[in-house]
Amino acid sequence: MSDLNHRISQRLKELGIVLPEPPSPVASYVPAVIVGRLCYTSGQLPLHNGVLSAEGAVGSTVSVAEAQEAARQSILNAISVAAAAAGGVDHLKRVIKVVGFVQSADDFHQQPQVINGASNLLQEIFGEDGRHARSAVGTNALPLNASVEIECIFELME
Amino acid sequence: MSDLNHRISQRLKELGIVLPEPPSPVASYVPAVIVGRLCYTSGQLPLHNGVLSAEGAVGSTVSVAEAQEAARQSILNAISVAAAAAGGVDHLKRVIKVVGFVQSADDFHQQPQVINGASNLLQEIFGEDGRHARSAVGTNALPLNASVEIECIFELME
Amino acid sequence: MSDLNHRISQRLKELGIVLPEPPSPVASYVPAVIVGRLCYTSGQLPLHNGVLSAEGAVGSTVSVAEAQEAARQSILNAISVAAAAAGGVDHLKRVIKVVGFVQSADDFHQQPQVINGASNLLQEIFGEDGRHARSAVGTNALPLNASVEIECIFELME
Repeated sequence: MSDLNHRISQRLKELGIVLPEPPSPVASYVPAVIVGRLCYTSGQLPLHNGVLSAEGAVGSTVSVAEAQEAARQSILNAISVAAAAAGGVDHLKRVIKVVGFVQSADDFHQQPQVINGASNLLQEIFGEDGRHARSAVGTNALPLNASVEIECIFELME
Repeated sequence: MSDLNHRISQRLKELGIVLPEPPSPVASYVPAVIVGRLCYTSGQLPLHNGVLSAEGAVGSTVSVAEAQEAARQSILNAISVAAAAAGGVDHLKRVIKVVGFVQSADDFHQQPQVINGASNLLQEIFGEDGRHARSAVGTNALPLNASVEIECIFELME
Repeated sequence: MSDLNHRISQRLKELGIVLPEPPSPVASYVPAVIVGRLCYTSGQLPLHNGVLSAEGAVGSTVSVAEAQEAARQSILNAISVAAAAAGGVDHLKRVIKVVGFVQSADDFHQQPQVINGASNLLQEIFGEDGRHARSAVGTNALPLNASVEIECIFELME
């Protein structure tokens, strides 16, 4: 970890962002797993202090703006669990891949705009290293009735 | 493969679990692919001797308990195809990532409980090395009207 | 890149296939990311010269044949963006993983047949190296009302 330089923790401070506490691991799966220099996160819901920031289908009861905020919260949780697994946020080097599931009314087609709430934050925090490959898809149902679920792959510092 | 020690085949025997026969490869895709020390499986349905163990949407015609059993069957199939690709189940070292798709009624939100049927079995078989990152999401439709489809990434012995 | 041999560009020529121009990168995410010897693509829609080749749910307004053609177009776009990231299509060695999302009527269960439109083309182009692990799942909604979205992982030449 020779080039560990507090880049990301510094950037979070500049942006005024405090990472959420990572959730406690549950019995049979964990929030994030490291293999080689990649860190895979579990799907993250927009939970903030135990409360969902958006519930229900986007395009019916939830607006695009509300869902973007939920996507932002979900990716903050993803950064938090990856940081905890990696030994600190400064061990996260780059964002490789994001998959965003958006609970959608059947006629809602702006999943990319919703997931921009996550992608834009990744670029604010990680700069060039935040530019990731991404899929944004709809779904009719998510855990806890959440509006968004996001999983992600980070590359770690060597 | 120096530390190949029949750990997983022994554990399966203790648990009284016989892995299903892996399905024959089809023309244009295969049940599992190895790259480096990772093995990616194709999405596995809850097929047992060619019959689906659960069909239809969870929360309407299918119960959580029935869907958990289907998740258990799907992950057994995933272990089976990964073992066949890796040259035997004892070449599987660790479970990295699970994605579970649950065919869901629009108001069904217990996808994590359903996929626990797979996650719990992975921990029974692999112990600490069975603790994986995971996403559980809903969907309105799956192949063959299956209630569950699960894909998975394993790490292999070196 | 010692064994770079124009194998894939030659094969595309034989098949009479001209890869589409890769789309320009957008602000906060990119069409494809390389890490180690893997290339992850973003989810690709069946866009051809800016127009979707199929819109709407398969099993209601869209036929299986139309959706297969859309899957073919989506995977051509995936090859195109991976080739652009890798420095040319001949740097693509092998197809590792495909995930295909099919916008589906609730009672439509032939997602695998639809995604065969992509898998068959991969094998036509890459031969043995085109045989990938794959998940085909349904969804109630996709970006732009597309009938298909496909993401993919390629292995690169060393």
